[in-house]
Amino acid sequence: MTAPDQGGKVIGDVPLGLGDDVGSAGIMRTKHVTFDEPGRALELEGGGTLWPLTIAYETYGTLSQARDNAILVCHALSGDAHVAGRHSANDRKVGWWDMMIGPGKGLDTDRYFVISANVIGGCGGSTGPSSEDPATGRPYATRFPIITIGDMVNAQVMLLDHLGIPKLLAVVGGSMGGMQVLQWTVAHPDRLHLAIPLATAARQPTQAIAFNEVGRQAIMADPDWSDGDYYGGKPPAKGLAVARMVGHITYLSDEAMNEKFGRRLRDIHDYSFTFSADFEVESYLRHQGLSFTSRFDANSYLYITRALDYFDLTRDGRSLVEAFRDVSARFLVMAFSSDWLHPPYQLKEIVGALRATYKHVSYYEVSSHYGHDAFLLEREKMEGIIGTFLASGARSFTPPGG
Amino acid sequence: MTAPDQGGKVIGDVPLGLGDDVGSAGIMRTKHVTFDEPGRALELEGGGTLWPLTIAYETYGTLSQARDNAILVCHALSGDAHVAGRHSANDRKVGWWDMMIGPGKGLDTDRYFVISANVIGGCGGSTGPSSEDPATGRPYATRFPIITIGDMVNAQVMLLDHLGIPKLLAVVGGSMGGMQVLQWTVAHPDRLHLAIPLATAARQPTQAIAFNEVGRQAIMADPDWSDGDYYGGKPPAKGLAVARMVGHITYLSDEAMNEKFGRRLRDIHDYSFTFSADFEVESYLRHQGLSFTSRFDANSYLYITRALDYFDLTRDGRSLVEAFRDVSARFLVMAFSSDWLHPPYQLKEIVGALRATYKHVSYYEVSSHYGHDAFLLEREKMEGIIGTFLASGARSFTPPGG
Repeated sequence: MTAPDQGGKVIGDVPLGLGDDVGSAGIMRTKHVTFDEPGRALELEGGGTLWPLTIAYETYGTLSQARDNAILVCHALSGDAHVAGRHSANDRKVGWWDMMIGPGKGLDTDRYFVISANVIGGCGGSTGPSSEDPATGRPYATRFPIITIGDMVNAQVMLLDHLGIPKLLAVVGGSMGGMQVLQWTVAHPDRLHLAIPLATAARQPTQAIAFNEVGRQAIMADPDWSDGDYYGGKPPAKGLAVARMVGHITYLSDEAMNEKFGRRLRDIHDYSFTFSADFEVESYLRHQGLSFTSRFDANSYLYITRALDYFDLTRDGRSLVEAFRDVSARFLVMAFSSDWLHPPYQLKEIVGALRATYKHVSYYEVSSHYGHDAFLLEREKMEGIIGTFLASGARSFTPPGG
Repeated sequence: MTAPDQGGKVIGDVPLGLGDDVGSAGIMRTKHVTFDEPGRALELEGGGTLWPLTIAYETYGTLSQARDNAILVCHALSGDAHVAGRHSANDRKVGWWDMMIGPGKGLDTDRYFVISANVIGGCGGSTGPSSEDPATGRPYATRFPIITIGDMVNAQVMLLDHLGIPKLLAVVGGSMGGMQVLQWTVAHPDRLHLAIPLATAARQPTQAIAFNEVGRQAIMADPDWSDGDYYGGKPPAKGLAVARMVGHITYLSDEAMNEKFGRRLRDIHDYSFTFSADFEVESYLRHQGLSFTSRFDANSYLYITRALDYFDLTRDGRSLVEAFRDVSARFLVMAFSSDWLHPPYQLKEIVGALRATYKHVSYYEVSSHYGHDAFLLEREKMEGIIGTFLASGARSFTPPGG
């Protein structure tokens, strides 16, 4: 195993201490670990293996001597390992869950050692379709194997072994991150104490498959996609932008859209009577679509949405109650009232199945008009609940050998 | 004015009388009328004019001597003039609202004279972007002017004048058809007695604009779109298919999708671990997208969605109550419980504004899990309500000069 960039100057975990950045996790650097010992490949659920395997990750705070304060944060479809802080002092963009992670925040980095890793199949530094295929020396493209949420989690287990963490205090995540949390509880019940799935489901719902299929067809319809072999050439930016636009609509609510944009026009006083982006909402979506293409790989979009669609804890015909039979984690399940991608009923299904076998589960439905994106925005409403759950759970946690 | 195809044998309005087709409107033929007198162009809301103007239409039943039994049915985004019956004895596909129109049906063609016209901008025989631009002798393509719901309705007024109908007994329509109904009541209050808007809104909601913009971007991203000048060449089928897939999701409900498809696999026992259409819902959407491209023009999709997005009865800053001030029609407003494209609150807004000035309005919220498509499917629940409303309204109707 090599950790290629660990020879560099590690500047992570340095609080900025600037007046306008109180609570920041600091200036972070994404680290990488590559598992390349011969014979040690990741076995994949769909058959086949992945080798070598690089995982990009960041860590925040300090791992305690007892190794009992580690929290894994799992990201959603378009996320990456950069979950909090900034990559440089001039970096204008903070990590995707910066509101929740830092000194004194919900995931208090003065107390907890927070880990976040880019999923395999992604394009944030972990092995994915844009990585070099050792068989050909060229990017995998569509020769990359189909991966699942289970495979993503198994790769995270390798990372934890590497970091020397036998059991996590908690695994937290929203949307696809929440699916990883659920997968952790079922596939590796002995390796986590607390599970916090947010805005997610025990199986990808039909409507979400449908929207993902639209996105995939938009990408594959783009001639620049070239059957996936566009690396080094022109990427399928138009197709990916359309896919992202569809996604964005599902992350907002009807209510939030009305409030945020309504029918407001952009920089004009009346309709242009053309196909220009007259409405603010059109301009917003075009911008979201376009800006996404500069930071995300279209093939990763295909692979990750496929992993989402394949996610189903009841896949082998067992009931959800049976699926959860061996879980030992204590759960905090959180739904958001206006989330129509994963409406509260999908979270309640998880809660009901856990309660049916007397698992330890708390459920909160946060009232919010932000839709699915609420788990990225409702800091005030989430921080106290999650912070209290973690603090209380930490008191009852003794890691193996502790 | 010429009616080019009226020299042919008109075979409309002939009941089939077949045992398996009881209640059919019969074998219909789409008729056309072209308004081409010099100086008689349709003035458009966005500026400019349209000349000559052809309208494709069908009629069902017989116009009464008193001309007091005419009902105009307005179609939605992808509809056309063929609203009921079949185009030939072997035609396997009936008109888009066949369930409601025919002898003894909700819009009983033994009593009423039903008219349906393809909207301008469409591709079902009325003048649209694929029509010949008299200025160039070539198809308009994107040189076609932007049209509005108001323009569509003004073209329908020309058709009614041509048919010699001074005042309609009723105007009926769902979705975009419902917007036309509302526009009729506001712009031509003296020309209809009853208004039946279904599953619609007084202004296109933000989320619907957003989905339409995705569809437009998908079409325009297709290189075969060629800035609209694809006639005679390869049409942007892939882009249009993606647009249609997005649309289809918005016409169904989460519930209906779960019920109709769930996570069922298609012709396989387990995941293929490829990007094939493993799930039935993927296969359904791909099929819907593909089959749409053989019957619909991509430029019409652009123009009609733009007309939808521009629709706003409160556009000039007036309230909805003010907008409805001069309406004299009696309203039957119908919402469908699981419709998330036009949820019941959007129909209730119409009802509230009408009631605020003591207009005659009945409101029904039909309980249905079909989503927006419910107005095309819930025959049992709609027929009695609409039939009774029409019969009762017919008794209080005296057309001008009657």
